[in-house]
Amino acid sequence: MSEPHTDARPGGLPPRLSAYDVRVFYGDTDQMGVAYYANYLRWFEMARNEYLRAVGFPYKRIEAGGVRLPVVEAGCKYHNPAYYDDWLRFEAWIADLGRVRIRFEYRIRRVGEAENLATGFTIHASLNADGVPCRVPESLRMALQQFDPSLAP
Amino acid sequence: MSEPHTDARPGGLPPRLSAYDVRVFYGDTDQMGVAYYANYLRWFEMARNEYLRAVGFPYKRIEAGGVRLPVVEAGCKYHNPAYYDDWLRFEAWIADLGRVRIRFEYRIRRVGEAENLATGFTIHASLNADGVPCRVPESLRMALQQFDPSLAP
Amino acid sequence: MSEPHTDARPGGLPPRLSAYDVRVFYGDTDQMGVAYYANYLRWFEMARNEYLRAVGFPYKRIEAGGVRLPVVEAGCKYHNPAYYDDWLRFEAWIADLGRVRIRFEYRIRRVGEAENLATGFTIHASLNADGVPCRVPESLRMALQQFDPSLAP
Amino acid sequence: MSEPHTDARPGGLPPRLSAYDVRVFYGDTDQMGVAYYANYLRWFEMARNEYLRAVGFPYKRIEAGGVRLPVVEAGCKYHNPAYYDDWLRFEAWIADLGRVRIRFEYRIRRVGEAENLATGFTIHASLNADGVPCRVPESLRMALQQFDPSLAP
Repeated sequence: MSEPHTDARPGGLPPRLSAYDVRVFYGDTDQMGVAYYANYLRWFEMARNEYLRAVGFPYKRIEAGGVRLPVVEAGCKYHNPAYYDDWLRFEAWIADLGRVRIRFEYRIRRVGEAENLATGFTIHASLNADGVPCRVPESLRMALQQFDPSLAP
Repeated sequence: MSEPHTDARPGGLPPRLSAYDVRVFYGDTDQMGVAYYANYLRWFEMARNEYLRAVGFPYKRIEAGGVRLPVVEAGCKYHNPAYYDDWLRFEAWIADLGRVRIRFEYRIRRVGEAENLATGFTIHASLNADGVPCRVPESLRMALQQFDPSLAP
Repeated sequence: MSEPHTDARPGGLPPRLSAYDVRVFYGDTDQMGVAYYANYLRWFEMARNEYLRAVGFPYKRIEAGGVRLPVVEAGCKYHNPAYYDDWLRFEAWIADLGRVRIRFEYRIRRVGEAENLATGFTIHASLNADGVPCRVPESLRMALQQFDPSLAP
Repeated sequence: MSEPHTDARPGGLPPRLSAYDVRVFYGDTDQMGVAYYANYLRWFEMARNEYLRAVGFPYKRIEAGGVRLPVVEAGCKYHNPAYYDDWLRFEAWIADLGRVRIRFEYRIRRVGEAENLATGFTIHASLNADGVPCRVPESLRMALQQFDPSLAP
């Protein structure tokens, strides 16, 4: 997974992040005393959702335009457990803005700590109202590139 | 909450039950080592869903007919904890079939055990496609009464 | 359910609230296009959790003292649906501070709106490390009464 | 991801599967009208859980022996959506039985259909009671190899 803020792209720019902070609550834990592993995908969605809001193009607006971005692949590496009542920071950025696909990446840390608890990604297909693959809408692409210049061609 | 199999109704008939068995899995537990309390409402839905299938009128068919039955009230009493890997039996029945409302009741036990782990209820409003309250469809009412004669007027 | 800010108690004081704001995300919705009904119990927990933190006696500290407060009963009335991307305010207060039981009440609104989306309650038993009912710890009771004077005897 | 029933291993034996069938219920869907993507990781756990039971070495017994197998990595490819009320078959097998790690793989189909809805994997570390990596217990290894001879060295 590409590290944000490192120079892994041709243009030389690091990806621009968006962050969202959430408390681990009791219902997120399992009897091992740590946050259950499936919750991280829910948290990734929260981070992604706020990313698109920060871009000024919330997902609702994408849907209102007749386009959906369902997840076609997801992955998560669990480096360290998150515990009940931890105050977590979810960070999301776009690692690849393709013609018909978008790859988001994520990292989860405790607020104020540098250690990654989890890192992951989701790949989204752009589908029109009939469920047929379509180009990422130009208005969305431009908003994403304006928010994160490293995504410009 | 009315006890099933006791004679609490004018007609003298006990309600007819439907049962659905499910394993408590790890993601259902919390760090107290027991099933998290919100899961019971999910389990109630599973029981209700299978009840309607047993009736021969699955919820999908109700929705296809342009009617929805959203929950307007729910309640649960937690008598004894459910543990990881328990094999649970969810039982549902209709306690009240009104003109525009339906009351389901539930009990959750371990398969083969008599002790209640939880009991609860949900009250559903009958809404048409515009979200306006409407009578419970006659075809559904007849199917419910055929399945459970105690619901007949 | 007692209305907060109305004078329903002998002492004449309204209960003191604590609020916690959360976004409805995609995973909270169901195919009816509204927040799924079981999520409200998760939200109640979030509100309750932050209430105890506001009191200065977070639930972790209660557990560290060897006491647990499992839910023995919960209920929710669903007045109006919550939609994807709504920015919700969860409010919690204590409606009854008994010797061995605590009753929390909740209401859920959109931030800045007066209309209730849902109202509900949970009743908690005070259990010691062996799972035996015990008095609500005196230190917790005093903290709760200091936070909300209407709970004082 | 290795395909089960194909001959991808040195020994020439396909992995032995375990299957578990579950209904998609309303709470599993989101407003796109399909099962929410994080649920697949919950379903993978159900499949894995039943796999270990089929082996005769349920996870509870592993935990009782002082060993835990937390997920250190998970991934899922979403090929086709699962819908409300679908009757799904979750299949799990072990793709790699290492010294200190185990890799499970999964596929999700509708019962009686050949098309994959999702495929995925989880990698588990073997940890002792202190959370320190340890060898997969010999008794577990033998049970796994007896269940699935393709895992024998």
